[in-house]
Amino acid sequence: MNIDGKPYRTIWLAHDGRSVEIIDQTRLPHAFEIATLATTEDAARAILTMQVRGAPLIGATAAYGVALAMAADPSDVNLAAAIDHLGRQRPTAVNLKWALEEMRRTLKPLAPSERMSAAYAKAADIVEDDMTSCRRIGVHGVGLIERIATHKRPGARVNILTHCNAGWLACVDWGTATSPIYHAFDAGLPVHVWVDETRPRNQGASLTAFELGRHGVPHTIVADNAGGHLMQHGLVDMCIVGSDRVTAIGDVANKIGTYLKALAAFDNRVPFYVAMPHSTIDWNLERGADIPIEERSPDEVLKMTGRLPDGSIVTTDIAAPGSPALNPAFDVTPARYVTGFITERGICQATRDGLLELYPERAAGS
Amino acid sequence: MNIDGKPYRTIWLAHDGRSVEIIDQTRLPHAFEIATLATTEDAARAILTMQVRGAPLIGATAAYGVALAMAADPSDVNLAAAIDHLGRQRPTAVNLKWALEEMRRTLKPLAPSERMSAAYAKAADIVEDDMTSCRRIGVHGVGLIERIATHKRPGARVNILTHCNAGWLACVDWGTATSPIYHAFDAGLPVHVWVDETRPRNQGASLTAFELGRHGVPHTIVADNAGGHLMQHGLVDMCIVGSDRVTAIGDVANKIGTYLKALAAFDNRVPFYVAMPHSTIDWNLERGADIPIEERSPDEVLKMTGRLPDGSIVTTDIAAPGSPALNPAFDVTPARYVTGFITERGICQATRDGLLELYPERAAGS
Repeated sequence: MNIDGKPYRTIWLAHDGRSVEIIDQTRLPHAFEIATLATTEDAARAILTMQVRGAPLIGATAAYGVALAMAADPSDVNLAAAIDHLGRQRPTAVNLKWALEEMRRTLKPLAPSERMSAAYAKAADIVEDDMTSCRRIGVHGVGLIERIATHKRPGARVNILTHCNAGWLACVDWGTATSPIYHAFDAGLPVHVWVDETRPRNQGASLTAFELGRHGVPHTIVADNAGGHLMQHGLVDMCIVGSDRVTAIGDVANKIGTYLKALAAFDNRVPFYVAMPHSTIDWNLERGADIPIEERSPDEVLKMTGRLPDGSIVTTDIAAPGSPALNPAFDVTPARYVTGFITERGICQATRDGLLELYPERAAGS
Repeated sequence: MNIDGKPYRTIWLAHDGRSVEIIDQTRLPHAFEIATLATTEDAARAILTMQVRGAPLIGATAAYGVALAMAADPSDVNLAAAIDHLGRQRPTAVNLKWALEEMRRTLKPLAPSERMSAAYAKAADIVEDDMTSCRRIGVHGVGLIERIATHKRPGARVNILTHCNAGWLACVDWGTATSPIYHAFDAGLPVHVWVDETRPRNQGASLTAFELGRHGVPHTIVADNAGGHLMQHGLVDMCIVGSDRVTAIGDVANKIGTYLKALAAFDNRVPFYVAMPHSTIDWNLERGADIPIEERSPDEVLKMTGRLPDGSIVTTDIAAPGSPALNPAFDVTPARYVTGFITERGICQATRDGLLELYPERAAGS
């Protein structure tokens, strides 16, 4: 999408045709900086430190991490080591494992001498596949927004609440939850987005607000606590969030706090949609309760990074000195609270049957 | 309660017998400072700027604000002006209007020359009444904690989640939501408190964590987003929150985000209690939807105050530059999601009949 009128993606091959460049998302929204990944270790560190984040972008970065490994040493041992190392950086997003499995499946049968070019080609495929998926999510999802707009008085804005950043910054382009929004905005529909701040890492206030604002989409940041109140007062027409993992029966792992918004949407009859590409679906897992939930550093709760008036970036302690914190990074929203899924193939109910209608090739025995 | 072993209250008469001293809560948890209120305007500003906050403490401060007015000019005109001015500082808490009405009822019939001493006496009564109410809330509420403890294995901690600060810092002493917790802790029960950070003003991370920590109560700060996840995993035995206004049918206005926690408690069958003194009940209002909800500055969402490593306190911008924010300060939890009320008279169901059982003098026709 655009940043101040210039189109960007989140990851691209550098001019040397070998190293990879990313937008360093740990610097946003305070500074817009490009970082170079020259080694597998750079890619692993970018995933771990969240220079890249968002399930699809983590997968794309891991794929290029394998390509960087093949550029350095295309042996069987190094292929296995790189996949193993990259896979251990984040535990919740299924896209990471999916992308690495795709790389393994493609590269393992090849002679080492063929692996480097095949790895870069496959990583580029994964990136293209994600962009296509995200674009199609928008093409399908924009219809939901259009339908709401036709039921409001002409010109009245359609209010969409989103949590965390399932935007183009979490993917390669378009985003998942934001793709229907960008499509609606680009089509001239009067959309307005309630952006959950998304504590403790503030991906909403820092990343979603940044990307919507730079593309020109009207939006308002709210504390995570405010969404239920907005819904009670008819100020939310629909919710769209992304997901880090959807199980085969439709349970949804996403950023911590998603479950609370789903409960409020259910209580106020606000449609609650989850937008994700096929790579987010974990067909091997049934119960959301079985998804491993990453626990991150208490410092994310106890400290806050921000800009001083002079423009410098500082991190301050914000809590009572000496108090401990716990920081689970994701929660699981049971399928019964999800109105539907928006995927690259269309819209379906949040059930096993709904998912199988879109992905019939996954049906047992098919 | 204690601060590092020394007992404190939140408001007290200064040595001069005329001005009033408070703990400046805008400086907590970074600095512990006492502020002096020498005029009605000082009291009004303390309420507006949240040097004092919490419904009961706002009421007590307003009462002393009227006393300070009577010390300066005990005329009818000044009495009316002081009550009017103090009443306009915060819109949601009913205690403010309740305390001012008590002052008016007491002082208006008196000759101006009698008003100053009567005003200080009445303000002291209101303070004593609050302390007694809060202590009794604890005496009644501790039984709920004891009952949970007896159903767990011996020594297993009882996990209580609270939102915002309905602690002794919000009252004069003991607190409302925290009073059962302090009583349980002082009685040797193994309590542990999940402290919601409570964005955007962080009263949980800064005030509740401060007061629990300084009294010695085990606690852990969590992002507001985490409570539902904790409940899904059996890590919350009960919720206790305070309230800024309870309607005659049991709807509960409290800090923004309370409603989301009530929904999660309901979904996970976790008991959700609201602790409040009688002065929080608005017998003249039925529907929670009719409670005016204060909208505060967007800066509370967009900026954050914290300590730098050198100990200095700074405020930083934390959101995407140029993005707007909306900041509703309270929400309303429908009575159907409240397990019960804990008041100074006992425990009751969150219904009109439940409230009238504890306060039969309020029944129509009685």
